[in-house]
Amino acid sequence: MSATAFVGLGSMGLPMARNLVKAGVAVRGFDLRPEARAALEADGGLPAASLAETFDGASIAVLMVVDATQARSVLFDQGALARMAPDGIVVLMSTCPPSAVVDLARRILDAGRRLVDAPVSGGVVGATAGTLTIMAAGADADLDAVRPVLSAMGSKIVRVGAKPGQGATAKAVNQLLCGTHLAVAAEALSLAEKLGLEMEQMLDIVSGSAASSWMLRDRGPRMLEAEPGVTSAVDIFIKDLGIVLEAGRDAKAALPMAALAHQMFLSVGGRGMGTADDSQVIRAYRSLRGTV
Amino acid sequence: MSATAFVGLGSMGLPMARNLVKAGVAVRGFDLRPEARAALEADGGLPAASLAETFDGASIAVLMVVDATQARSVLFDQGALARMAPDGIVVLMSTCPPSAVVDLARRILDAGRRLVDAPVSGGVVGATAGTLTIMAAGADADLDAVRPVLSAMGSKIVRVGAKPGQGATAKAVNQLLCGTHLAVAAEALSLAEKLGLEMEQMLDIVSGSAASSWMLRDRGPRMLEAEPGVTSAVDIFIKDLGIVLEAGRDAKAALPMAALAHQMFLSVGGRGMGTADDSQVIRAYRSLRGTV
Repeated sequence: MSATAFVGLGSMGLPMARNLVKAGVAVRGFDLRPEARAALEADGGLPAASLAETFDGASIAVLMVVDATQARSVLFDQGALARMAPDGIVVLMSTCPPSAVVDLARRILDAGRRLVDAPVSGGVVGATAGTLTIMAAGADADLDAVRPVLSAMGSKIVRVGAKPGQGATAKAVNQLLCGTHLAVAAEALSLAEKLGLEMEQMLDIVSGSAASSWMLRDRGPRMLEAEPGVTSAVDIFIKDLGIVLEAGRDAKAALPMAALAHQMFLSVGGRGMGTADDSQVIRAYRSLRGTV
Repeated sequence: MSATAFVGLGSMGLPMARNLVKAGVAVRGFDLRPEARAALEADGGLPAASLAETFDGASIAVLMVVDATQARSVLFDQGALARMAPDGIVVLMSTCPPSAVVDLARRILDAGRRLVDAPVSGGVVGATAGTLTIMAAGADADLDAVRPVLSAMGSKIVRVGAKPGQGATAKAVNQLLCGTHLAVAAEALSLAEKLGLEMEQMLDIVSGSAASSWMLRDRGPRMLEAEPGVTSAVDIFIKDLGIVLEAGRDAKAALPMAALAHQMFLSVGGRGMGTADDSQVIRAYRSLRGTV
């Protein structure tokens, strides 16, 4: 059996590909950055000098690229899809707008292959530990075929539907909650700051009460730091909440809270802080107060 | 030592007063509804036919009334405060605007007594189990004096400051998170409905991912029910988010997410559903979609 292709060896993709290697899957990884390719090779991945070589004869190709545009470019503009085995399955794990996934699935089917739509939740921590939640959508036979690959990267594989695009839809609902909870946590902690409460104590109270959210517990402590390390950037939520709003727009569903949360992230991005840790959405509130 | 007065034997107050009785505190409870007074008496509370009798000589008086206006009415307009022991301590546990608590504390001090500002988090479940989180603010000596009373009702007593009003402030931050998370959960589940996802499955995914919040896990299942039982009403969050916005206004802190969440609750209240379970804030989103 041919090696599994893996494109996009970034902060999520590299640890995911490593987990595939650990599970005994032959992985040929590709990334535009040579150092990312070398990192995977060092951990047991097969060498691949080009995208064409990565996809050559592959039965399964995993995409963990930045967005749907990059997936389209890799598969079609750069001709990777045509290099796959005639019955090849593309597993798209990036966060993409549902409509873009539906479109990609149609074009892949037109080219004789199939798409499994399988976005993930769990971040770098889950990607590294192999404990991602994977929201998979596709034909049953295709999902069965890629099951071993998914199981090597995630601990919770949920079949959310038979049609590609339904995974992206579930991910949009997930990201609506994540991004909006982040903005809400920032708003609450910013109010506590303004009112002069003891911040560590306040965070402890709300982290253990009905006021708690996963994001508040995880990002809240970093909101109190001046220059926290970057686990996931403000730009990621500018992108992801943009996808949420696009999903809402396509479905004609009003999403006022998510739209407002998006504006708060945009405000921070617009100050040139898009690469800061996403906890720094609290700076939007500090700006509103006229402080830094 | 005189009995502890307890005013406001509603869905929160009655179980809290019962926990005082269980802890061996002599409690004289009062509520305008005779059946509430009878319920406490049946569980070992002392009889009290009037507000005056309840407060007569009391060293400690706990208020779990609806709001600051009712607290003011009980203490001053109805003359209860003047019936207390000369060194009596009022423990205000209702959710009130910080500025109203500061004002009450000043008036109580002018009358020779002291206020401990001690709002709670944990709902009816926490009130019943005696596991409330209590955000207490007041002079050290006063907090020490009421500590046994607070410990009988809560499992986490946090001293958030030396000045009455700081407890109310902490509670406002807590309620900002609770109310806004409820609206966000409704927005996300409403989007999932609109997009045709399998709702139970979607709720399971987001309840176990970084998208999770306490409110989503607790109220999410009730959002999927047509006529859920009422644990806490829409009207409560109309009131509480109103207090949050008042705290923000007094501090000149912009709270855009909380303000928007308040509007969603108001929309449901405006349809005559203020007494419905607060999970029914999802109906605001169904209205936006033109469904019921």
